[in-house]
Amino acid sequence: MIKVGFQGVSGSFSEEALFNYFANDIETIAFHTFEDVFIGVEKGDILYGILPIENSSTGAISDVYDLLNQYNLYIVGEKYIKVRHNLLGVKNSQLSDIKEVYSHPQAFEQSKDYLNQFTNWKLIPYYNTAKSAEYISQLNNKEIAAIGSRKASELYHLNLLAENINSNKKNTTRFVVVGSSLEINQDFNKISMVISTHHKAGALFHVLKNFAENKLNLLKIESRPIKHTPWEYYFYIDFEGHLEDPIVKDAIAHLEKDCTHFKLLGHYKGELQL
Amino acid sequence: MIKVGFQGVSGSFSEEALFNYFANDIETIAFHTFEDVFIGVEKGDILYGILPIENSSTGAISDVYDLLNQYNLYIVGEKYIKVRHNLLGVKNSQLSDIKEVYSHPQAFEQSKDYLNQFTNWKLIPYYNTAKSAEYISQLNNKEIAAIGSRKASELYHLNLLAENINSNKKNTTRFVVVGSSLEINQDFNKISMVISTHHKAGALFHVLKNFAENKLNLLKIESRPIKHTPWEYYFYIDFEGHLEDPIVKDAIAHLEKDCTHFKLLGHYKGELQL
Repeated sequence: MIKVGFQGVSGSFSEEALFNYFANDIETIAFHTFEDVFIGVEKGDILYGILPIENSSTGAISDVYDLLNQYNLYIVGEKYIKVRHNLLGVKNSQLSDIKEVYSHPQAFEQSKDYLNQFTNWKLIPYYNTAKSAEYISQLNNKEIAAIGSRKASELYHLNLLAENINSNKKNTTRFVVVGSSLEINQDFNKISMVISTHHKAGALFHVLKNFAENKLNLLKIESRPIKHTPWEYYFYIDFEGHLEDPIVKDAIAHLEKDCTHFKLLGHYKGELQL
Repeated sequence: MIKVGFQGVSGSFSEEALFNYFANDIETIAFHTFEDVFIGVEKGDILYGILPIENSSTGAISDVYDLLNQYNLYIVGEKYIKVRHNLLGVKNSQLSDIKEVYSHPQAFEQSKDYLNQFTNWKLIPYYNTAKSAEYISQLNNKEIAAIGSRKASELYHLNLLAENINSNKKNTTRFVVVGSSLEINQDFNKISMVISTHHKAGALFHVLKNFAENKLNLLKIESRPIKHTPWEYYFYIDFEGHLEDPIVKDAIAHLEKDCTHFKLLGHYKGELQL
């Protein structure tokens, strides 16, 4: 049994991602913040950590991008989890009782069409969906609901007042599994890295040229600010390939030479058909 | 006197940006959400609206990017405002009284080094910095503080318990001014647009090639998800140039042909030295 960590409380989508990713027996440990998960892996308290990195509707989870650049951990896997939000109330509560709803602001955003029907509800932003469920179960007030997962409703003994209330039924979160070493396997086909370029015309283009000329498929590019150098950026790039492929090795060698910052963030098997 | 709008309440950085941008007399109107500002301009209730689009430490304000793509307004100007956070308490309160602090989560993040000294403070996320200042002035409890601007402390008659507590002294927010028509002027030198490309190897590279070959300086690229097509993206691109320059016209003509989505978001004068 291995120890693996996630941010949040039991019943969160992150914990669900862990159970789905690891086929074998795992002991899951909840951490307070994303950074605590990174520290947990670094210290060896957990073997792997899981972190949400992107949602298909709301985009990048920037804190996680920043932490991947800051800590010396590696992405070793990924997992996609469909986000299904539900309106949860305490026992014996009914939809008509509700006056206040607690949840993460992104859950409000993702359930906007449903919530727009109830203009008198007060929406109160809270840490995350699972903590909101836990909190309203403690308040035990029929007028107060939370938006959260089905798993959270079971854990905190809450009523499912409305199911699958998210506007976008395709809404999916991509999670990455991080460990303390780079892993390598024959079936790995995705590489993640972060770079920054000289601040001049064509510098980013010059970098991307490496990929295009070698027919390497660029899957994703995300930019994040360099905090102490306003209006310069780190570019997080995911591309298709195997680290032992000579073409990939050559492209990476060029990047290391051309970029002002280059960091390999991981090598792993993409879950989706590339 | 023209009517101009911003999101938030008086004392916000957005309102400060409006006063700084417009040299002449303006009447400022506060809106509840970013989207309300867009609607206000569209309906003609205000001539221009101002919106924060990016912070030099925390990055893109994604909702504003999404709204720029969704509404048919144009960026006609930009303004940079230094973010200076302060700890505000009610009259007669002292630093040693404080137990709870209200503010926007980004303000907590931006003041992390300062806040880390007070591990017993409970940080409560709230709508924005100015609303937090307004709220704690209503609570009028010596133990409850807010993080906000100096302007907010004056408006809501609060004590400055600690000044300039943001970790990054260079922390700046970029605002864009939007209007209902594209504007054009001899001294304009920035163009913003949003595109999406075919989902295949080299497509984004192919687009950027246009810029590089014509020596057009790419200033910024930001990716946002296409909500109903998971893992495909809109790319928001800012570049240096004038819309009437034949090279720019040609590059744009190529983009319109090559991209699956192309929208000109605005033409304006960049405030910073490019």
